[in-house]
Amino acid sequence: MKIAVLPGDGIGTEIVAEAVKVLNVLELPLEMETAPVGGAAYEVAGHPLPDATLKLAQQADAVLFGAVGDWKYDKLERALRPEQAILGLRKSLGLFANFRPAICYEQLTHASSLKPELVAGLDILIIRELTGDIYFGQPRGRRTAVDGHFPGSEEAFDTMRYSRPEIERIAHVAFQAARKRNKKVTSVDKANVLETFQFWKDVVTEVHAQYPDVELDHMYVDNAAMQLVKAPKKFDVVVTGNMFGDILSDEAAMLTGSIGMLPSASLDKNNKGLYEPSHGSAPDIAGKGIANPLATILSAAMMLKFSLNQPEAAARIESAVQSVLAQGLRTADIWSEGTRKVSTREMGEAVVAAI
Amino acid sequence: MKIAVLPGDGIGTEIVAEAVKVLNVLELPLEMETAPVGGAAYEVAGHPLPDATLKLAQQADAVLFGAVGDWKYDKLERALRPEQAILGLRKSLGLFANFRPAICYEQLTHASSLKPELVAGLDILIIRELTGDIYFGQPRGRRTAVDGHFPGSEEAFDTMRYSRPEIERIAHVAFQAARKRNKKVTSVDKANVLETFQFWKDVVTEVHAQYPDVELDHMYVDNAAMQLVKAPKKFDVVVTGNMFGDILSDEAAMLTGSIGMLPSASLDKNNKGLYEPSHGSAPDIAGKGIANPLATILSAAMMLKFSLNQPEAAARIESAVQSVLAQGLRTADIWSEGTRKVSTREMGEAVVAAI
Ligand SMILES: CC(C)[C@H](C(=O)O)[C@@H](O)C(=O)O
Ligand SMILES: CC(C)[C@H](C(=O)O)[C@@H](O)C(=O)O
Repeated sequence: MKIAVLPGDGIGTEIVAEAVKVLNVLELPLEMETAPVGGAAYEVAGHPLPDATLKLAQQADAVLFGAVGDWKYDKLERALRPEQAILGLRKSLGLFANFRPAICYEQLTHASSLKPELVAGLDILIIRELTGDIYFGQPRGRRTAVDGHFPGSEEAFDTMRYSRPEIERIAHVAFQAARKRNKKVTSVDKANVLETFQFWKDVVTEVHAQYPDVELDHMYVDNAAMQLVKAPKKFDVVVTGNMFGDILSDEAAMLTGSIGMLPSASLDKNNKGLYEPSHGSAPDIAGKGIANPLATILSAAMMLKFSLNQPEAAARIESAVQSVLAQGLRTADIWSEGTRKVSTREMGEAVVAAI
Repeated sequence: MKIAVLPGDGIGTEIVAEAVKVLNVLELPLEMETAPVGGAAYEVAGHPLPDATLKLAQQADAVLFGAVGDWKYDKLERALRPEQAILGLRKSLGLFANFRPAICYEQLTHASSLKPELVAGLDILIIRELTGDIYFGQPRGRRTAVDGHFPGSEEAFDTMRYSRPEIERIAHVAFQAARKRNKKVTSVDKANVLETFQFWKDVVTEVHAQYPDVELDHMYVDNAAMQLVKAPKKFDVVVTGNMFGDILSDEAAMLTGSIGMLPSASLDKNNKGLYEPSHGSAPDIAGKGIANPLATILSAAMMLKFSLNQPEAAARIESAVQSVLAQGLRTADIWSEGTRKVSTREMGEAVVAAI
């Protein structure tokens, strides 16, 4: 089983190194090959997603990804900026289904911004469509406005779009995921304003006919942003488009207080996938050895489960993480009075030891 | 001074009635005329924004709006649904600048989902552009896809767009508002993905040159959704587009715990405006006499200040609201142990008495 390891920028190298240690100790036939991506790739190859990196990712059975981005690339033209690498990988690999669990770890309940009773035991799954919507819709660009409020003036524009098969396949993913959980899907749209999301709502409703055992409700995105704050535990699986999913999955992740712990998976139609922590590259703490590697380690566990068909190995990682938390080990981001503050490396090695 | 009073649906009639009582007691030369809007207008005139209602709104100096929407209209074709009234009013009246304060009332701090220390004293102002973006961009509709992932399949699409003058005028509004506050503007975009919001960021940065006394920072919308949860007090004025503003202003309002208290204003270029509570029509509690009229009463105060040039009258309303809260009066939505639960009418009359 071949894994493309793409550490990227900022804390990416540090956290991915710990996940690799954890994978190595499992004694599985894993072949790991590392390549640069994001700003790191721009530095060495002049492009955030060099051909060699893309080819490696295409040939691998799964991709383990750190994080990309650094303020120092803000002035580069858009096509060369680090985040284009992640957009390029999603598109080239056809990674249309993004799984973003928002889980509140029992030992970290107090770290949430929300009152403990609102988040204790929280376990929701946000499924974000990842290769469509306004992220990739054409045409887009700048032009002279021919109508609107100020015809004749300079304007910029983008195209939001979803086709029926794109909506159908992500809806199937959501209903199937809900079947393995609490059998409830909330589809988030803005059907009261957008043609794209009226269509989304219609198609999701049609697909739902094949899943009579799963409950479906529809919610406007503005209301969803509120309900996540008010009563997050009312959700089970949330399915939405690329743009709304970007916003809501980050909001939900932050609400848990456990963002340093949350993995994510982005899957293609054959369950080949890219796995990355839900948090970003955090250039402000890069190189200090204090980042939390657990989200990346748990992403490696998701990889074993979803793409590499190794559920037992995944479970070993997950229980090792539970056990280091139970031992009271904490990186700075999740540290609190009475627990032991450890470095990135110490945390990784504690997981290795627990396995 | 002529005010168009549009109560709308659900709790709209009940809460607007109390705001009208409050306006009446001020003994100002206000001429108020009521007209149906939303579902209520559809019932009597077959359209959510009948010509007579629109004309009244156009002729008035300001519009006092309740709320629109009810599940019973969900099956109507889009053009006849209640929310089209509010979109139609915004567009016809050119109400491009939406002011959505997110304030945490001292007495209601405990009602927030967030821990008290995160929201106590919170006072941020979200300025949402309201007549552009993907809300009104053309073309939009359904068609057969000619490219994308599934050429030949049915698709729906919308157009996001902003022109330079649209961005300039809302940026000026934001910088000027910040001057009267803590002199800090956060412009929220998604410049890393969208052409429209790279342009937004560029133009806001250009306009900023005229406001050297105001601090400007830029934040991606996904990060903004997180920072609102993590540290809402770090914001002062937030300025963003119509779509992102819809989501973030609702998230921020709900975070305060005071959503039943939050007014809003939507202004045109001459400060003529439409004033409405930040919450919706709440059809589930309509007719029960338990809705909180304070957001609408405070919207009337905003109206006096922004459109009718009556800052003293506005201040009288605002301090009357403070005093009823201090007296311990609470409608059901904000009630807690040790305070006195009152009806919509009792709350309105208490404000009248306090004036
Ligand atoms: C970096 C950026 C392009 C990306 C996105 O918007 O999808 C990120 O926010 C994410 O959610 O993975
Ligand atoms: C009712 C709907 C069209 C409207 C919007 O999306 O603008 C509402 O959510 C709002 O924020 O006023």
